[in-house]
Amino acid sequence: MPMKAAELIAPYRITKGRKFKLSSIAPDDTHGLDIEKEDAKLHIAAGVTKLSEMQEMLYAQDRWSVLLIFQAMDAAGKDGAIKHVMSGVNPQGCEVHSFKQPSTLELDHDFLWRCACRLPERGRIGIFNRSYYEEVLVARVHKEVLARQKLPPSLVTSNIFEERYEDIANHENYLARNGTLILKFFLHVSKKEQKQRFLERLDEAEKNWKFSGADLAERAHWKEYMQAYEDMIRATSAPHAPWFVVPSDNKWFARLVIVAAIVEAMKGLELSFPTLSKTERASLLQARKVLAAENSGG
Amino acid sequence: MPMKAAELIAPYRITKGRKFKLSSIAPDDTHGLDIEKEDAKLHIAAGVTKLSEMQEMLYAQDRWSVLLIFQAMDAAGKDGAIKHVMSGVNPQGCEVHSFKQPSTLELDHDFLWRCACRLPERGRIGIFNRSYYEEVLVARVHKEVLARQKLPPSLVTSNIFEERYEDIANHENYLARNGTLILKFFLHVSKKEQKQRFLERLDEAEKNWKFSGADLAERAHWKEYMQAYEDMIRATSAPHAPWFVVPSDNKWFARLVIVAAIVEAMKGLELSFPTLSKTERASLLQARKVLAAENSGG
Repeated sequence: MPMKAAELIAPYRITKGRKFKLSSIAPDDTHGLDIEKEDAKLHIAAGVTKLSEMQEMLYAQDRWSVLLIFQAMDAAGKDGAIKHVMSGVNPQGCEVHSFKQPSTLELDHDFLWRCACRLPERGRIGIFNRSYYEEVLVARVHKEVLARQKLPPSLVTSNIFEERYEDIANHENYLARNGTLILKFFLHVSKKEQKQRFLERLDEAEKNWKFSGADLAERAHWKEYMQAYEDMIRATSAPHAPWFVVPSDNKWFARLVIVAAIVEAMKGLELSFPTLSKTERASLLQARKVLAAENSGG
Repeated sequence: MPMKAAELIAPYRITKGRKFKLSSIAPDDTHGLDIEKEDAKLHIAAGVTKLSEMQEMLYAQDRWSVLLIFQAMDAAGKDGAIKHVMSGVNPQGCEVHSFKQPSTLELDHDFLWRCACRLPERGRIGIFNRSYYEEVLVARVHKEVLARQKLPPSLVTSNIFEERYEDIANHENYLARNGTLILKFFLHVSKKEQKQRFLERLDEAEKNWKFSGADLAERAHWKEYMQAYEDMIRATSAPHAPWFVVPSDNKWFARLVIVAAIVEAMKGLELSFPTLSKTERASLLQARKVLAAENSGG
């Protein structure tokens, strides 16, 4: 790392959101770092290696689970960050769930349901590419999304998003108490940078598939979305479930912050390979003897 | 009903548990009712008919879901109550989940997970035969059950059951806010009556399958279980998720209270068949014309 991981992530780690302002973090911030792109890649790779080692201990120990939540505007770099940060990790201990428009089955349930069912098992890293936070983002900006949720009308009060913040915070508190390490990443991109990336998607044939007409419609709601993100971060940041507001106009910097945040938080779990009791060790030695004593024809 | 449903259930419906004492409700109480068994059956059947009608509206309306949770000592009559109260209801809108010893997959998740994934869809009645409440009952009486849950040791504090009460209460509050009607039944049987029912299971060949040696071992922990039930009811009763402490030494009375409680609570949802807008009605009339105009060979 170009500086200590804890120091690198400190400005972006929100554990108490009450007074948080999105404007306090610039999307093009790089924490004063001015390194070559190749250099950044090396640092990211070193972080991924560390992450990969810790994931093996997480899996062997089989007590904690890790939940990484990614939220962002379109083209902020969620998919790229997941690809670059997690590609070194053994897929056997890591699963990604992308939450798009809810299915009819999902709409027939409470809003946490589809995510709750896909929570990572102990020993695993689960990644939510979008999540139940959509329920206080897109559902807030677009009233018609809320209307599709088939709630009994008497329950749709002016208080509904306050209730959702509280329910989400309670849910995460519960998960933390039961052994889930929760890290939440908001990839903070500027409207200007989004424009550049959209233009690339429109101009480069092999990126065309990434663009949809709906993306422009969402862009038109930029201000409302920023308000929704700010309110969400204010209401749901906690020491056991911090939000990382990751400056994302520079992809290399966003990825560096993300890998550092995960490594730093997993260090806090004090993971180690399970050690054997005397009896267990004796039983392994016994197994060793039996194997060694087999005649070579066996 | 031999008396108004609301009146029948009132003494057993706990919405504020703080000072609740299990000893305040006698397992052989019948609310002063002294009716013939055949009479009781008729009243239960009338309740089931009403329930069945409301379930159809619940299904058609597709907004609310109903969650019925049953907890009790062995032989208290959970299975019989579910059978007799729910058998008149269309199985298409009703599902029963029995939660036994958690599987290895289930142990790899937080304690609410296996139940949360099986919550009823909107428009349906879901029945939990045992539930996440086992996590503050059997897990409290038997420390080895808690030990099997693979929690990170640092999270297993002396506070763990208080945390679980709180997490369960928050979870139910969330579900209620999102359209789930929650009713919880504790079938309150006396130790003396359990002895009688165990003896029947041992003496009657066709009931033998219902008895397991483990049942006697659990019976030996009677007092600890009663304390755990009382604490659970104290901590998790709420207007939106009441506990019904159902006197269950008389099966007919338990069933009567249960059906009355469900009917009464579902009435509160003010269910009705969906009505059509003018446009929708016009479109139905149009469809009618098209059908009628088909020549008879069609």
